[in-house]
Amino acid sequence: MKLYGYWRSSAAYRVRIALNLKGISAEQFSVHLVRDGGEQHQAPYIDLNPLELVPTLVVDDELDTEALSQSLAIIEYLDEIYPQAPLLPASALERAHVRAMALTIACEIHPLNNLRVLQYLTQTLSIDEAAKNTWYQHWVTSGFAALEVLLARHSGRYSFGNTVTLADLCLVPQVYNAQRFNVDVTPYPNIMRVWAECNQLDAFADAAPERQADAI
Amino acid sequence: MKLYGYWRSSAAYRVRIALNLKGISAEQFSVHLVRDGGEQHQAPYIDLNPLELVPTLVVDDELDTEALSQSLAIIEYLDEIYPQAPLLPASALERAHVRAMALTIACEIHPLNNLRVLQYLTQTLSIDEAAKNTWYQHWVTSGFAALEVLLARHSGRYSFGNTVTLADLCLVPQVYNAQRFNVDVTPYPNIMRVWAECNQLDAFADAAPERQADAI
Repeated sequence: MKLYGYWRSSAAYRVRIALNLKGISAEQFSVHLVRDGGEQHQAPYIDLNPLELVPTLVVDDELDTEALSQSLAIIEYLDEIYPQAPLLPASALERAHVRAMALTIACEIHPLNNLRVLQYLTQTLSIDEAAKNTWYQHWVTSGFAALEVLLARHSGRYSFGNTVTLADLCLVPQVYNAQRFNVDVTPYPNIMRVWAECNQLDAFADAAPERQADAI
Repeated sequence: MKLYGYWRSSAAYRVRIALNLKGISAEQFSVHLVRDGGEQHQAPYIDLNPLELVPTLVVDDELDTEALSQSLAIIEYLDEIYPQAPLLPASALERAHVRAMALTIACEIHPLNNLRVLQYLTQTLSIDEAAKNTWYQHWVTSGFAALEVLLARHSGRYSFGNTVTLADLCLVPQVYNAQRFNVDVTPYPNIMRVWAECNQLDAFADAAPERQADAI
């Protein structure tokens, strides 16, 4: 397997955690999201990922080589082919709760705050730095407020009960981003408790942006 | 089961199609997203859905009543408990491709263009109507350009091969939105071919916004 990512991409960070938890070794390639206008917009990468985003997981199928995009699709794939250390609970209802937590981050926070959107705000809409940061914090805080309620209902040691799930793989990178943009995280004690608990595990700690080979 | 939705919500539209395809009857409740500042922001709904979004599916578990949020989590749940008319292919690799298509819409287009984001742009950032429409079209066209490449690789009669999948449940509502905001869809022949094919099916046609009881 080959993982194309970037140290600061929180979507790639999610996949790195999944690989670590399952003990899967994948060759890692850095796609620099900023240099030269962004390597994600250049050939040959755009053939692997037409959306011009990271991560991409390249897997060798029986017949040929296939490129998979979208971090949650990649993680569900890994969870299906490597069932040890499952990232989803056993019951359908519990899986729905875990996926809802993951999607609360992956659909309601992260897409609004990723690099291409911040670039559009500053470059196309000429939003100043303060307004950009307010935008960033707005979507983190509204999403975290909801996630905090869900964690109050469902969390144990981790986001859902006492086993690491897909929800944790989304939570930890999102907290990293929130801290990077100076979001006040004190209103979210459950989120921060779970974040700290996850980072006790090597699989999470080793996936942290600063520990990656392409970190500046 | 009870589905809380809104006729024009494309996330609710996705779930309506899933219920129809599987022949599941659910009592439908309208959460008016605009009236009185939005019923999704008011009690008692916010207890069902702390993110204050639609849809919410309320199901009776063995022990109690549970509220599920996030359309893709709801659809995966329905697909697991009602396995007839499966919405995901049999192999893990194929499922990954279908989920990636669905998430390309659900994570890269829709979150940027939903009501709360458009309200933030116009009300908080004072973006004018023309710039708002350009924003809207920008994210649809960049997402559709990528999706068109994926469909050229994987589509048959539908988005992935010749069976309806989760990808189609996301594609059809997104085309509805694109047309509503006058996006030029001529560069996406595969998307529009699949869209037309899906709408031949009663499950899709009956889920259309204008056919809902709360449509204005």
